Amino acid sequence: MLKNRKVIRIEWGDCDAAGVVFYPRYLAYFDACTHALFERAGCSQRDMQSRYQILGFPLAEIRARFIVPCSYDEDIVVETCVTEFRRSSFEVQHRLYKGDALAAEAFETRVCVARPAVDTQKLEARPIPPKFVECLSEPES
Amino acid sequence: MLKNRKVIRIEWGDCDAAGVVFYPRYLAYFDACTHALFERAGCSQRDMQSRYQILGFPLAEIRARFIVPCSYDEDIVVETCVTEFRRSSFEVQHRLYKGDALAAEAFETRVCVARPAVDTQKLEARPIPPKFVECLSEPES
Amino acid sequence: MLKNRKVIRIEWGDCDAAGVVFYPRYLAYFDACTHALFERAGCSQRDMQSRYQILGFPLAEIRARFIVPCSYDEDIVVETCVTEFRRSSFEVQHRLYKGDALAAEAFETRVCVARPAVDTQKLEARPIPPKFVECLSEPES
Amino acid sequence: MLKNRKVIRIEWGDCDAAGVVFYPRYLAYFDACTHALFERAGCSQRDMQSRYQILGFPLAEIRARFIVPCSYDEDIVVETCVTEFRRSSFEVQHRLYKGDALAAEAFETRVCVARPAVDTQKLEARPIPPKFVECLSEPES
Repeated sequence: MLKNRKVIRIEWGDCDAAGVVFYPRYLAYFDACTHALFERAGCSQRDMQSRYQILGFPLAEIRARFIVPCSYDEDIVVETCVTEFRRSSFEVQHRLYKGDALAAEAFETRVCVARPAVDTQKLEARPIPPKFVECLSEPES
Repeated sequence: MLKNRKVIRIEWGDCDAAGVVFYPRYLAYFDACTHALFERAGCSQRDMQSRYQILGFPLAEIRARFIVPCSYDEDIVVETCVTEFRRSSFEVQHRLYKGDALAAEAFETRVCVARPAVDTQKLEARPIPPKFVECLSEPES
Repeated sequence: MLKNRKVIRIEWGDCDAAGVVFYPRYLAYFDACTHALFERAGCSQRDMQSRYQILGFPLAEIRARFIVPCSYDEDIVVETCVTEFRRSSFEVQHRLYKGDALAAEAFETRVCVARPAVDTQKLEARPIPPKFVECLSEPES
Repeated sequence: MLKNRKVIRIEWGDCDAAGVVFYPRYLAYFDACTHALFERAGCSQRDMQSRYQILGFPLAEIRARFIVPCSYDEDIVVETCVTEFRRSSFEVQHRLYKGDALAAEAFETRVCVARPAVDTQKLEARPIPPKFVECLSEPES
């Protein structure tokens, strides 16, 4: 599978009163990493919207483990790849490194959704476009 | 003018490593207070969208002063009102109290905008609907 | 176990470009709910700091499921309780309701930590104070 | 004065339901840019803490103008410099560019503070260390 590496500078404003990253901010990092992976694969969310009328890939489930606390002014690296595709959902894995140490990891289940023509408020699961699977399945570079 | 009071609990996650509110979070409070004022006036953003095709009231300018630091587990009170209406923009004032002390204040300039029919990406200034001015101008209750 | 119910107004700024809550914001809600539960039990983080030199209860793991999308101007209710205590860690469960529907749920593993005397940067697991267990174990009211 | 340029990728999670950056996120960008300027000058907040017992430089005032809306997947550039030093406070200016267009600008007044020895909760204004002024006053590179 295609793997993306994203370097993230931890900002002062990402940390809580204990001086370490406030954990929901990690999940914002991971969300940004998922988008970065899609973009690197040539399948950004905007592209999927314009080409396939896919609204996006909202999260159905997340599991995350926090192993080593991280703090501001540190640069961490997140490695992200899809680990499994199903008909309309898929699994994304993130490994967050602080130097050589695995500091956190997360597993997202995301669903491919569109807005049905008749009701613009609801979201509807859609089969994942084959092109999306193809682009994200390319051998690791 | 109609004045709204909103009590806000400062959360652990709103504070930075110095143990006080990370200042952009104050501005998220103020944004929530502006929406609460509109809703109390019977003119929520959703109402404005469905009745007048107004997309919303994005910020053109903000000025804010931070006087007394606030920390988690504190309840603060924000008093919010419009102080001036112009053709397509208006001024919102927020006063944030910690007990009896004025801890922060902010002044927002907001613009009434819609999406033009032909291009769904751009935003266009629109005259403020008279009903909106009327509802927000009611004498303080 | 003691259960706390917290009503949360979803704010405009909590939502993403799809018009639904940006998922890391749910986790910020859950974090606030955990703190609210501790406070209701008479064991706020500040109390634990001053009485037991406990720095706090950082997250070791989280699992969350997102079932029904929520949007701004909605009031949701989160029910929170501890489901299991171990020596220095415990499990917190959150159920987030939109009306009668379970819209999301989360399971947090948290660890009781302190700063060792010699090195103020590192965190060290500590046995959970019995008083903390007692207060959070009270029968549901 | 020393000027720092920081490239920022606007993330999906930085945008609101109108599809543009939720304005408090701009202020989080600006805060990160102020820290980046200090770091480039060799005067990071951590350095100031360890060398001069300065806790940090909290915001006393901010003014910001939002000119062109920005959206996710865009890279913006922020140019940041100090424009004036006083005894214990100083002015920081940010100019945010989207391509060649000035999309936003902000003016921060920040105060140099420390924790007095006797009371660890309060903050006290302190004269800005001359070294800090010197490093940030270097001619533009």
